[in-house]
Amino acid sequence: MRAVLVCNGSINDYNIIKKYITMDDFIISVDGGARHLRNMGIIPNILIGDFDSAISCDLQYFVDMGIEKNKFPEEKDMTDSELAIEKAAEIGADELLFIGAMGSRIDHSLANVFLLKKCMDIGIKACIVDEHNTIFIINSTIKIKKQEGYKLSLIPVSERVTGVTTYGLKYRLDNATMLFSTSWGVSNEFLEDEAAVTIDEGLLLVCVSRD
Amino acid sequence: MRAVLVCNGSINDYNIIKKYITMDDFIISVDGGARHLRNMGIIPNILIGDFDSAISCDLQYFVDMGIEKNKFPEEKDMTDSELAIEKAAEIGADELLFIGAMGSRIDHSLANVFLLKKCMDIGIKACIVDEHNTIFIINSTIKIKKQEGYKLSLIPVSERVTGVTTYGLKYRLDNATMLFSTSWGVSNEFLEDEAAVTIDEGLLLVCVSRD
Repeated sequence: MRAVLVCNGSINDYNIIKKYITMDDFIISVDGGARHLRNMGIIPNILIGDFDSAISCDLQYFVDMGIEKNKFPEEKDMTDSELAIEKAAEIGADELLFIGAMGSRIDHSLANVFLLKKCMDIGIKACIVDEHNTIFIINSTIKIKKQEGYKLSLIPVSERVTGVTTYGLKYRLDNATMLFSTSWGVSNEFLEDEAAVTIDEGLLLVCVSRD
Repeated sequence: MRAVLVCNGSINDYNIIKKYITMDDFIISVDGGARHLRNMGIIPNILIGDFDSAISCDLQYFVDMGIEKNKFPEEKDMTDSELAIEKAAEIGADELLFIGAMGSRIDHSLANVFLLKKCMDIGIKACIVDEHNTIFIINSTIKIKKQEGYKLSLIPVSERVTGVTTYGLKYRLDNATMLFSTSWGVSNEFLEDEAAVTIDEGLLLVCVSRD
């Protein structure tokens, strides 16, 4: 089962984002993400967070419908997004889609990107989507369908990533080593209908992005 | 000397961003960053990039003023931002400010954040600023002046960060170990006029952010 976490970041085009959500997803409204759900006309399965950033009328709107509300104290040891991941694990999700995870608060955006590793560690296949990007983290292999007009970027988030091998991309890598803080994996291009990236060791962000 | 790299990301409020640039900065226009400089009425010292994203009229505007243009091939082994860092090092900069480094292309935004480590490695004190955030990377210590309405977030970008000790923050850490992909360092609060963060080992992003 897939859980969709709708967070409090930016969503500028609801029509694009709605297409990612299907009727059988388990939808978790994460704190101020309630406003996005209300704007999209989507009813969540549960509301969670400390509700410091949720506009109370959006919250009340869903509470009045009988939606369960899990309130956590403001002074807690993880962000609302991480709480939501734990909830997703608790209900047995094996896939997770983050929406509204990127925004003007870079600290929250970065923390959300790095939480993809937490998902991986607990066996949940996860990604972040917004209007311009889909972000994955891998420690082994991934296949990605070509999207017209999109670039594919490989960005190390461990000190080194070894054995990086790509298929179906313009700039091919064959058993390469990528170090943290080098930018040469950015903006590769799809050559085939499907690309694949494999690594031996390390942690690699894989971003599919368009201007 | 400080170099200011003006990149092609988003700048929504030029009045905020202009305040960060002083008259004695060495200003590097990084590819499409030329449009931001032209919009701010600031003349760069040099134009660099492959110019795939620069609108040619903005580029020509500065070229006509006699500004030096360093064109690199499109198929190169680093992003324009990384090229610009190398240029900054070449001209002897010991400080670097990234502007327009964050935007809708998350791959570029992430690569720019991680390039802070490259700057650190070559002895350049660097940070990224946008309208909501200032982002630093540390491997030892940093002092940060309180800014009203801002939170301070600590986000590990190495597998573990040890000896994390903070001063002047509400949630105090004393010789703590922070692991990659945990979110509990997000949204700490300033208690004193100046905060300090010290670590023993690892790499830590320090973000000063407001909603």
